[in-house]
Amino acid sequence: MSISLPTDKAVLGVDIGGTKIAALLIDDEGTVLARGVVPAPAAEGGRAMASAAASLAERLSAQTGRSIVAAGVGAAGVVDHETGTIRAASEMFVDWAGFPLADELAERIGAPVRVENDVNAFLLGEIHHGDTDGADVLGVMLGTGVGGAIVLDGRLRHGGHGSAGEIGHTPGYSDLRCTCGQIGHLETLASGTSIGLRYAERSGVAGLSAREVADRARAGDRIATDVYSDAGRALALACASAAGILDLDRVVVGGGVIHAWDLLSAAIEATLLTDSPVSGVPLIIEPAKLGTDAVALGAAAAARRTFLETVTPVPPLVLEGETA
Amino acid sequence: MSISLPTDKAVLGVDIGGTKIAALLIDDEGTVLARGVVPAPAAEGGRAMASAAASLAERLSAQTGRSIVAAGVGAAGVVDHETGTIRAASEMFVDWAGFPLADELAERIGAPVRVENDVNAFLLGEIHHGDTDGADVLGVMLGTGVGGAIVLDGRLRHGGHGSAGEIGHTPGYSDLRCTCGQIGHLETLASGTSIGLRYAERSGVAGLSAREVADRARAGDRIATDVYSDAGRALALACASAAGILDLDRVVVGGGVIHAWDLLSAAIEATLLTDSPVSGVPLIIEPAKLGTDAVALGAAAAARRTFLETVTPVPPLVLEGETA
Repeated sequence: MSISLPTDKAVLGVDIGGTKIAALLIDDEGTVLARGVVPAPAAEGGRAMASAAASLAERLSAQTGRSIVAAGVGAAGVVDHETGTIRAASEMFVDWAGFPLADELAERIGAPVRVENDVNAFLLGEIHHGDTDGADVLGVMLGTGVGGAIVLDGRLRHGGHGSAGEIGHTPGYSDLRCTCGQIGHLETLASGTSIGLRYAERSGVAGLSAREVADRARAGDRIATDVYSDAGRALALACASAAGILDLDRVVVGGGVIHAWDLLSAAIEATLLTDSPVSGVPLIIEPAKLGTDAVALGAAAAARRTFLETVTPVPPLVLEGETA
Repeated sequence: MSISLPTDKAVLGVDIGGTKIAALLIDDEGTVLARGVVPAPAAEGGRAMASAAASLAERLSAQTGRSIVAAGVGAAGVVDHETGTIRAASEMFVDWAGFPLADELAERIGAPVRVENDVNAFLLGEIHHGDTDGADVLGVMLGTGVGGAIVLDGRLRHGGHGSAGEIGHTPGYSDLRCTCGQIGHLETLASGTSIGLRYAERSGVAGLSAREVADRARAGDRIATDVYSDAGRALALACASAAGILDLDRVVVGGGVIHAWDLLSAAIEATLLTDSPVSGVPLIIEPAKLGTDAVALGAAAAARRTFLETVTPVPPLVLEGETA
């Protein structure tokens, strides 16, 4: 579906994280007209965050000579996407849980705002802008932690309690304690934090980032290679389980750790050979295409569809016992 | 949704397995008017199976004085639910794969027929007739193998390749080879067949059924108790993973093995205490309510909805990025 946006207007996409706020403007073709990034004043509270995002938006608007007609935000934390309020967030965000982000930002920029969890926005970005088709796709984010999102029948699935897609906290991958307190979750092997910790345990060298462990692996450090192999294998097993349950054939993986895709891919491919879905249809696990723009682009795409596209649906004859 | 069915008419539900065909008639309230069972002529081919089902239906129809206006079938094997054709089946079924069951049975009984995989029908039965609400539910069948089915938003989800719900063949639960050839699937611990095999490996006593192993456990046999505990723990872990990915709070477990729910439940409950979903909402794993009627009742319910209910849906405003 395309929309016809006057050439003096644009849609804003914003990616709000704990350290920075990134934003971009897109036209009706989805082309990025301008982008920018500012530090996130996470310690100063929700209002400061909304103001920082609005200032950045204003700058991009001035720069392109286009006014903003709608905005989408991908935000860290648990998000109530219906109201655009942050439900829960980590401690680094002051006054973020409970903050009515959509309303506060809409007031500042004078346009309607839709807020999604950042991992959901990432997957929407990959689907709408990448070459992944919109059918059934799992998105996994390997960052500080491991997040996930699910699109079924081309629609983001939030779940009854807003936590659909949380593959990072599914068990059975190790004997290690997860950040959440439980044992053996995918996150204990496949997050950037865990890659540093697992390397430290085996090598005695503590405090390295996932990127530094990757550098060591590429320089021939066998322990570093093994840590990435374990991450790749756990990721593939978790994806195979999800694929078995949901009959998926495609997973898109994003987050900082995919900078080391060269170190993950051999273990992923080897695991998919021994643990293929029972459907007989090969599972494809691939790195995200959009890089650091994915969250903002996905948020913008969601906002465009929510606020700008007038959909006149044909009444579907949906019978119980049928998928729509 | 209720329908108004004349008192001289009924809906047929059929459960076609490898050893027997069970059928029942329901009225418009879903009350069972009559039921019956005959041996399944699985070795004689699809036409013999359809004829056996039709004869049974005719007998129930004569017995109740009601004519059949629609029929639903829950059938073993991979089913194309859109055409009612069997796609694939195990070797014990002669000429079953490729058999156009819906058409052949419809011709014999003079009413439209809808065919579902038996595990899907089981879950539909539990949802429509049990006290499980229709939101998001995983169904698991612990029988000869381990099957599964998923209802999301009250609708059965088939998946892009017809294999959604196949939790029995997800990895990470043991080091044992599964019937499918892969390693460590849930089925290696939790199927009736596996319970007999695992007991044989540890005790040296081969050839016992799951029911016989259960009898020994109840008589104080520690090995038998452990085998059931392992099955319960693996089941709970698999359900917790599915719940994490799909944000579920309810799983219904059916199949012959649930006759030993007393031997499974302690391990299930203990596992759910240590491996609870990240949503914070407790996961409930409960045995099926409908016993041996579930597949036929679910199939009948699906047929009733497909053929008899005239649904005039309100056009839903479904936006991409939204669940319906």
